[in-house]
Amino acid sequence: MPLSSQLLENAVDQLATLPGIGRRTAMRLALDMLRREPHEVYRFADAVRALREHVQYCTVCCNISDKPTCEICANPGRERALICVVEDIRDVIAIENTRQFKGLYHVLGGVISPMDGIGPDDLNTRQLLARLTNGEITEVVLALPATLEGDTTSFYLNRKAAEADPHLKVSMIARGISVGGELENVDELTLGRSIADRKPYEQSVRR
Amino acid sequence: MPLSSQLLENAVDQLATLPGIGRRTAMRLALDMLRREPHEVYRFADAVRALREHVQYCTVCCNISDKPTCEICANPGRERALICVVEDIRDVIAIENTRQFKGLYHVLGGVISPMDGIGPDDLNTRQLLARLTNGEITEVVLALPATLEGDTTSFYLNRKAAEADPHLKVSMIARGISVGGELENVDELTLGRSIADRKPYEQSVRR
Repeated sequence: MPLSSQLLENAVDQLATLPGIGRRTAMRLALDMLRREPHEVYRFADAVRALREHVQYCTVCCNISDKPTCEICANPGRERALICVVEDIRDVIAIENTRQFKGLYHVLGGVISPMDGIGPDDLNTRQLLARLTNGEITEVVLALPATLEGDTTSFYLNRKAAEADPHLKVSMIARGISVGGELENVDELTLGRSIADRKPYEQSVRR
Repeated sequence: MPLSSQLLENAVDQLATLPGIGRRTAMRLALDMLRREPHEVYRFADAVRALREHVQYCTVCCNISDKPTCEICANPGRERALICVVEDIRDVIAIENTRQFKGLYHVLGGVISPMDGIGPDDLNTRQLLARLTNGEITEVVLALPATLEGDTTSFYLNRKAAEADPHLKVSMIARGISVGGELENVDELTLGRSIADRKPYEQSVRR
C-alpha cells in the first residue's frame, strides 16, 4: 500500500538509503522528524548537506580537514619519516587515542574490494606512492583491517612500495590476542597467528 | 579528541540525534554520505527538510496527508459510523493491510505517557471527542498498543467517550495468542488473557 503522503514516502525512501536502515526503521526516523521543531530538522538537513558540499581533504594525508593541510600534517612535532596507512578517519582517531604513534598518516579512503568494484585507483594510493618517493620517508606502517580486503590492500601496497623504493621499510601492525584476553575465548586463527608470531619474553613485556 | 573537521563534527552530532543511532554509527553514516555523489546527498537532505516544512495533516482524522482530507476520509465507500483510534500512521497502514476494517480512523499522534511528559492535550484527543459528538458515530474501536501507556490512553478515551455520549459503543481490539502460535511459546500474561477472554467455539472459528 502506498503511503498517504508523497512527502512522507520521499523522506522514508531517502532515510532507507542509509546503511543498515530498512524501511521500517526509516519510517520511525521520519515520524521522529515530524515530532521535532522545524528549526531542529532544518539544522539536521543543513549539517548533512554542508558536509558533502564543503568537505575538504588534507592535501598531504587525504584525511578530512577544514584546512588545506590538516593539524597532524602541519604539526612540526610529528616524525615526518614515518607514515601510517589507514582506511579512514575513524582509524586515525583510534590510533591517536592510543598516543603510541608520533608519525604522520595517510588515509586511503577505503580498501581494495573487487566484490564492490573498488580497485587501487579508487583509493588515495597515487598520493601515497608520491609521498613515498619524496625522499623523506623511511618507514611505512600498514594499519589496515585484518580482513581479506585489508590484507589484499596491504599486499598491493607492500609491492608498490618496494617498486618505488627498495630501501623503504614496510611494516604491519601486530596481530595476536587482545590485552586482557582469556585464551579460551580467542578464535583459532588469531591464537594460531599469535603463537607463530611469538616474540622473546624481554621484548614482549616492555611497554 | 575533537575531529579534524568542524563540518564532520556537526554532521555526526546531527546524525547522532536520530533515535537509536549512537556517535559511532553516526560517524559511519557521515562517511557514507561522503562517498555519495553530491546530488544524492542534497536529495536526501531536501527530502527530510521538505517533510517537516510542508507536512499536512488530514483535518478529519489527523493522519499525515498531502491533501486537507485524506483518501480514506474522502472515500464514500467507508463506513462513517465506525472510528478506529490508533497511535500513528504505521498502525493505519498495518490495519489497512488486513482488509478487515472498513470504517474511518483517528490518529492520536502518540499515547499518554507521564514519564515522557505526554498528556492527553499533547495528542489529537480534542479532535477525536469533537468527532464523537457529531451524531454520526456509533462505535469507537480502540486499537492502541498493548503497553502500560496504550492501556492508560484507552482507559482515558473510554471515560471521555462515555462522558461525551453514554450510548456510544467503545470496543478494544482482541488480545490473545497469535494465529499460528504454539502455546508453549506464548508469554503467561497473553495466555492468561486469552483464556479469560475465551469465546464460544462457533464464534471463534468463523472468519
